[in-house]
Amino acid sequence: MGGDHGPVVTIAGVDLAAQRHPDARFMLFGDAGAMAVPVAKAKYLQGRVEVHNAEVTVAMDEKPSQALRRGRNRSGMWLAIDAVRKAEAKAVVSAGNTGALMAMSRFVLRTLPGIERPAIAAIWPTLTGETIVLDVGATVGADARQLVEFAIMGEAMSSCLFGKEHPTVGLLNIGTEEVKGNDSVKEAGRLLREMKLPLRYEGFVEGDDIGKGKVDVVVTEGFTGNVAIKTAEGTARMINTFMRQAVMSTMVSKLGALLASGAFTKLRDRLDPRKHNGGVFLGLNGVVVKSHGSTDALGFARAIEVAIDMVRNGLTQRIAMDVAEVHGMLPLGDHHGETAA
Amino acid sequence: MGGDHGPVVTIAGVDLAAQRHPDARFMLFGDAGAMAVPVAKAKYLQGRVEVHNAEVTVAMDEKPSQALRRGRNRSGMWLAIDAVRKAEAKAVVSAGNTGALMAMSRFVLRTLPGIERPAIAAIWPTLTGETIVLDVGATVGADARQLVEFAIMGEAMSSCLFGKEHPTVGLLNIGTEEVKGNDSVKEAGRLLREMKLPLRYEGFVEGDDIGKGKVDVVVTEGFTGNVAIKTAEGTARMINTFMRQAVMSTMVSKLGALLASGAFTKLRDRLDPRKHNGGVFLGLNGVVVKSHGSTDALGFARAIEVAIDMVRNGLTQRIAMDVAEVHGMLPLGDHHGETAA
Repeated sequence: MGGDHGPVVTIAGVDLAAQRHPDARFMLFGDAGAMAVPVAKAKYLQGRVEVHNAEVTVAMDEKPSQALRRGRNRSGMWLAIDAVRKAEAKAVVSAGNTGALMAMSRFVLRTLPGIERPAIAAIWPTLTGETIVLDVGATVGADARQLVEFAIMGEAMSSCLFGKEHPTVGLLNIGTEEVKGNDSVKEAGRLLREMKLPLRYEGFVEGDDIGKGKVDVVVTEGFTGNVAIKTAEGTARMINTFMRQAVMSTMVSKLGALLASGAFTKLRDRLDPRKHNGGVFLGLNGVVVKSHGSTDALGFARAIEVAIDMVRNGLTQRIAMDVAEVHGMLPLGDHHGETAA
Repeated sequence: MGGDHGPVVTIAGVDLAAQRHPDARFMLFGDAGAMAVPVAKAKYLQGRVEVHNAEVTVAMDEKPSQALRRGRNRSGMWLAIDAVRKAEAKAVVSAGNTGALMAMSRFVLRTLPGIERPAIAAIWPTLTGETIVLDVGATVGADARQLVEFAIMGEAMSSCLFGKEHPTVGLLNIGTEEVKGNDSVKEAGRLLREMKLPLRYEGFVEGDDIGKGKVDVVVTEGFTGNVAIKTAEGTARMINTFMRQAVMSTMVSKLGALLASGAFTKLRDRLDPRKHNGGVFLGLNGVVVKSHGSTDALGFARAIEVAIDMVRNGLTQRIAMDVAEVHGMLPLGDHHGETAA
């Protein structure tokens, strides 16, 4: 039911994913009345879909606390997440309210043993391919230990999504020297250097290193990560508008742009946000993927495929194992697993 | 002496600024031997320049603490800043080591009464013109009170540089609701709302609002601001590379790009980092402007012009007055002025 366009777009996206993944099956949770026509139109879903009616739909602008109260046990979002908890589904994908999705996912699925706080990981296009950046908004002010956990989770996701055997990991900072940054980043850097974790820690990276693709995984706390990803999106949109205005200003440049349209298509394609759609919630007992609310069917299908990749490659199990392995190595007090939200 | 290219470029930049501002006079501090030829070549500097020899040149990669020890009283950087303190110069402009320039500036010039910490303000190109973003790296982890001071300083700079009578101010956050963000941002938001300062506070803004030009001044602490500006630069460079690769991939698109070259020039012009060059150190007893180290003569001249605008419009006095005015309104304990670095 979520996203800016509702089930017409999301179900078309499910259909596209069904076409590409003939062995996948789907459960849809929401207003059965609103879903009936899009489901009937979905060519590849026939015989492979269960529709579950839900009385309540979480609104896009609802506060997470209110969504939890109002939507508990009866919203489509809750029921979809609960299907993962009950092992009826392998993963949940939503284009709905991010804060509500995270709050319900933490409540229903809980964090993995040894993980203090969850993170949202974004897939970021770079000069050399794609980099995973986390956290982009789940845990504001993550401390050193949580940053180390994010590094472990991001590395596992990079392996699962891109098949990299030994992904490289960097800590986002304002300089590359050891003395730079705030206390939690410096301390996390020290831990990652000294703990001899089975991951390739490459040290500090700066904001402009993300687009260069300097490392496969960039780790930061949720406030900075959220500002960074939105600033990058804003910059890309601004340049796009400038380019359009510049090209449209004379007849000759319009003609030139027409001839170069193949190149522009290629450029748009590389930066297409639909191809990098899918914010993965890491650190929970189950796979949860958040699609951009403004995406179309193609973008929603991509988010589903990210979820499929995560399930196929055993992301949750891998994170659980990696964390268990380093659990005794983390010197910063006890782990409490899930803490009060 | 600073920057990636040294005095050949910086002095050519001074010459360009001299040409545009016939009433300005210049003092150069550095290795007199290295400066002799560029100065002799500088057409517009003749009769308007004093060359001061300095025994020590601060290296671009020197630690600020080491630069302070080694360069005190005898580096070009120190002597230039000291000329401002002694009122022999109105402003100092440097393309050198940012950390060293800030450390020396704080040491020599001190912060203004009522200002706890300095900030570095950047000039950011946007869809609607230019926005001032601060702090981009001077004060990591600024607290609520310091963020309010940054708001006052940024507003003063916007007035001085762009002649805006009532610039709008926003606080960088990860959402626009009052409950979003970390404690210092929420508290700063509350202070700015409730204090009835003589500035137009527009509430929280997000990373993608910067490029839209939603407000004239964006306030954030130094860690996030530094990551944001470098991420934007990295994104712009990445898109530029993608565009080049796409255009060069076929003969037809190359021809198209040739026809559209006027448009590309216009685009480059709007994003030209040289036109937005000049990080202004705010909150000190004097005007200090930091040029990008990698800029050319045109960019260095722009940094000098930013300094000239600041001096002409009485930035330092204006900040001192604004801060004195709101001094009694800030409820968070005593002001100590300069604190130990």
